[in-house]
Amino acid sequence: MNRTLWTLALCAAVPLTDAAAGGSDRARTQQITRGDTQVPSPGPADYFSGVVRVDPLFAASDEINASGAYVTFEPGARSAWHTHPAGQRLVVVSGAGLTQEWGKPVQQIYPGDVVVCPPGIKHWHGAAPDGAMTHLAVTGTVDGKSVTWMEKVTDEQYRAR
Amino acid sequence: MNRTLWTLALCAAVPLTDAAAGGSDRARTQQITRGDTQVPSPGPADYFSGVVRVDPLFAASDEINASGAYVTFEPGARSAWHTHPAGQRLVVVSGAGLTQEWGKPVQQIYPGDVVVCPPGIKHWHGAAPDGAMTHLAVTGTVDGKSVTWMEKVTDEQYRAR
Repeated sequence: MNRTLWTLALCAAVPLTDAAAGGSDRARTQQITRGDTQVPSPGPADYFSGVVRVDPLFAASDEINASGAYVTFEPGARSAWHTHPAGQRLVVVSGAGLTQEWGKPVQQIYPGDVVVCPPGIKHWHGAAPDGAMTHLAVTGTVDGKSVTWMEKVTDEQYRAR
Repeated sequence: MNRTLWTLALCAAVPLTDAAAGGSDRARTQQITRGDTQVPSPGPADYFSGVVRVDPLFAASDEINASGAYVTFEPGARSAWHTHPAGQRLVVVSGAGLTQEWGKPVQQIYPGDVVVCPPGIKHWHGAAPDGAMTHLAVTGTVDGKSVTWMEKVTDEQYRAR
């Protein structure tokens, strides 16, 4: 397994957490990773409620300090509350989703919407109760860390709209 | 116009070049930009052949040193040869595309494929001759610069497969 595949496998095994940095850019040649060669992984039950799939896209590197992945939430599924030390960008690709910053109202998000989450802001994101949602997440990494997980989003918090 | 919109407007006006850094993260609150509020722009004729549309998604910031945009190439359209000082990631979203690193063969790219282009590698990307292609581009920024444009891709180069 070459370095790129190792990096991607690691990314898949530890979704949204501590994505390896410094990977593929060192090859100094353009690399194409085919869509059917990246291994998806379930969102771990400790950090997600419901059925979630993470499809890794690219790892952070020495030069671009962010990793990329599609994350697909089945209806009702969502992340736990969490923060990102270097922030995150979410590009909604399909379906109907929800997101909330701590202390603010739950907001609906739809394809084409972009969520910009600054460093240290406590938030969650997921699907609507009756519809799945996929977003492409670009997650910043600092000192090898990209997320700090917190408590689960309760049903009461999830449905508070 | 708030800072986010200014940054996005700048990104749209100068696609893939010198995207402003240090924008929205400073707001220290999660921001949602709706899909119908980001202004697309044509790929400038100096840097692209054929019809190209750039839909900006997010700007680089102090914490995540890369911007994001959808780029849609009509059939036969392509970028000029160029390099990125901090590299680039391309996630093919739809259609059928082509890319080439200088001195290497033209390669076909399809939805789900991810192109990892390291810093300083001369390349081009675009649509297939008979099909459009959209990719999401995550482009690294260093010292406010994200691309160095070079000569156009000739028809002979484009069709050399």
